[in-house]
Amino acid sequence: MIEEEKGGLTAVTGFRATGVESGIKEEGLDLMLLSSERGAIPAAGLFTSNNVKAAPVQVSQNNLENQELGAIVANSGCANSFTGREGIRKARQMTQTTAEALNIKQEEVGVASTGLIGSQLPIEKVKEGIKEAKKKISNSWEAGTKAAKAITTTDTEVKEKAARVKTDNGSDIKIGGAAKGAGMIHPDLHATMIGIIVTDANITPAGLRFHLQKAADQSFNMTTIDKDTSTNDTVFALANGIAENEKITKKEPSEKFQKGLNYVTRELAKMIAKDGEGSKHFIEVRVEGAGSKEDAKKAARSVAGSNLVKAAISGKDPNFGRMVAALGYSGAEFTPSRISISLIGEERETPLVLKGEPLPEDSIDEAVQVLEEEEIQIYIDLDQGGESAVAWGCDLTEEYVEMNSRYFKT
Amino acid sequence: MIEEEKGGLTAVTGFRATGVESGIKEEGLDLMLLSSERGAIPAAGLFTSNNVKAAPVQVSQNNLENQELGAIVANSGCANSFTGREGIRKARQMTQTTAEALNIKQEEVGVASTGLIGSQLPIEKVKEGIKEAKKKISNSWEAGTKAAKAITTTDTEVKEKAARVKTDNGSDIKIGGAAKGAGMIHPDLHATMIGIIVTDANITPAGLRFHLQKAADQSFNMTTIDKDTSTNDTVFALANGIAENEKITKKEPSEKFQKGLNYVTRELAKMIAKDGEGSKHFIEVRVEGAGSKEDAKKAARSVAGSNLVKAAISGKDPNFGRMVAALGYSGAEFTPSRISISLIGEERETPLVLKGEPLPEDSIDEAVQVLEEEEIQIYIDLDQGGESAVAWGCDLTEEYVEMNSRYFKT
Repeated sequence: MIEEEKGGLTAVTGFRATGVESGIKEEGLDLMLLSSERGAIPAAGLFTSNNVKAAPVQVSQNNLENQELGAIVANSGCANSFTGREGIRKARQMTQTTAEALNIKQEEVGVASTGLIGSQLPIEKVKEGIKEAKKKISNSWEAGTKAAKAITTTDTEVKEKAARVKTDNGSDIKIGGAAKGAGMIHPDLHATMIGIIVTDANITPAGLRFHLQKAADQSFNMTTIDKDTSTNDTVFALANGIAENEKITKKEPSEKFQKGLNYVTRELAKMIAKDGEGSKHFIEVRVEGAGSKEDAKKAARSVAGSNLVKAAISGKDPNFGRMVAALGYSGAEFTPSRISISLIGEERETPLVLKGEPLPEDSIDEAVQVLEEEEIQIYIDLDQGGESAVAWGCDLTEEYVEMNSRYFKT
Repeated sequence: MIEEEKGGLTAVTGFRATGVESGIKEEGLDLMLLSSERGAIPAAGLFTSNNVKAAPVQVSQNNLENQELGAIVANSGCANSFTGREGIRKARQMTQTTAEALNIKQEEVGVASTGLIGSQLPIEKVKEGIKEAKKKISNSWEAGTKAAKAITTTDTEVKEKAARVKTDNGSDIKIGGAAKGAGMIHPDLHATMIGIIVTDANITPAGLRFHLQKAADQSFNMTTIDKDTSTNDTVFALANGIAENEKITKKEPSEKFQKGLNYVTRELAKMIAKDGEGSKHFIEVRVEGAGSKEDAKKAARSVAGSNLVKAAISGKDPNFGRMVAALGYSGAEFTPSRISISLIGEERETPLVLKGEPLPEDSIDEAVQVLEEEEIQIYIDLDQGGESAVAWGCDLTEEYVEMNSRYFKT
């Protein structure tokens, strides 16, 4: 039902993109531009719930009041956050320069930044970069990948994904996306890191926002790397309506479009968790049998976010007691004597706790074997009801600490 | 007004204590006994808010229904948590054996455990240990220190403190305490790690509980090491009424007793933060100018608990942007353009942010110097109102990760 497509942002007809080296970073791609060939189209955004909102977040929230965007400009290397009025001015200059280059209005440009908080953007370099990007913008896969790469910071891999779903009237909708993660990742409620989603769906702005929030709640908002919620979290979605589906609205949402959007956002969220700073294990926490959806989510994200669970897993130490403690302080309701916990790898699977009873020593030895694998699932059955949720995270390693003890000075 | 006294639990007349090697741990003191010479006396307890409550927590909560205790028995090396009915039975056997040894009732014994979650207590060893402790119990300073040492796990230092305050009628009240910390430290609301407070104050049980909760809210509950709230957090307070102060009640509380109790609990809380697993810096976060007490507390504890702030400080990296982000997601209300942040050491002090403006490069260099010191204060003025709060924590080091990646297996 969902077919994966090659590429990311440029997998959808009507979108062009690229990434360039503008010089904000000492080296590498650091500025991306995405443009809609149809000009301003329905758009939605989700932003950080942090009380300190970066300048680009404030400018984008303002520009999205018209619920239409024709381009996105985003940079890495500087968060343009906690930069006062000067920061706002510079974020506006980014949208203004982009608007002039693409011959659209300033209010039709979304802007996002990521990098160091508290330093000012080298705006002249950024402006030159935007002009250069305008010249190189293209609908090739390679250009889409460059765009995705230009928003990364300490990410070790480019994060892009695209998919196609068939709608009720038989027509196809394509959805493409790119994201960056790495550190300061604990998106909260209305928000995420930087994520950009494009689609050719025929959809109203309100419908797009509705579907985007639902997708984010089961993807980006279930990811945690360090429990630190950023000042810059931003997700944009743009829909150009080239597909021939029946118009999707908030009142008449599309389950199939939602599934496609869920797929793309979830794959991007998993890539973010896998590529957490310094991580050696990708951890999926699946909670089943919760009394409510909210409880399932709280429980899953609490275990995925526990420093002690994460440190244990980095040492291949199946310390289920720490998982139990993290479940206990999650706020989810459950009876300790009913819970079961298993560790599941690609090749092996071993129970740790069965109906409240820790299993004997030899299953601990087996669990150590499961932790030899790089991708593991902590499966938890609360035996309390019928709701479930999945959260993603990574282990806490000495490398994470080492990287984050020298981020600012270097 | 508050005079510090030597020692800890045995600094208060009428209390005897000791610690012994019962063999729960491979080596070292692991079982402590505290007894009131007057038998059962007014007592109060605060316990973890974790939904998974260790067996000793459940037994102690039950025994405190009568608001009187005559003894405390506590062990390290095994948390007796997530151990089902067998665990409850064993926690009761601890109180029963203690009661028999001291010739008091089982319900007059408080019990606490700390160590690995999910394994059963070697109860025969514990029982022998209790009998041995009964023989060695004494009111000497050394015995008090042994008791404090017997509840430690990965702590590198014994945590004890005692003080004396003069009350309104001119009589003295003494307060002594011991605590353990180290890891899985993020006491929540009603609770803390293990803390034991004794006093000779003449006070009702309800008065004692009232004062203890207030003291915990500004001490243990403002400490964080890893944001992991334990299943075993326990604080006991016992008051034998030997002092000749006018009786303190919940309706007629004593400001002076509160100050003394605040002092002892706060000093113990700071010792816990200083001795966080793997820590190299002690971090005090002082928030002034908050709009409400609640906001001040949230802001202080959020900055003290941020993985990214903590990792930065371990690398002597004055990354104020991460402090701003942690303030922003704390839930406290403030206007980013009004806040100021300084780094204060014993010998140096340097501003980082002044009224929303990051300071120039050379103050960053000075801040790096402040971080050469082991004990630092992050001073934050929200400029939003008149409330303040202080939280304590420590830096996040590679050693923390290393220690916690092998806790269970060894």
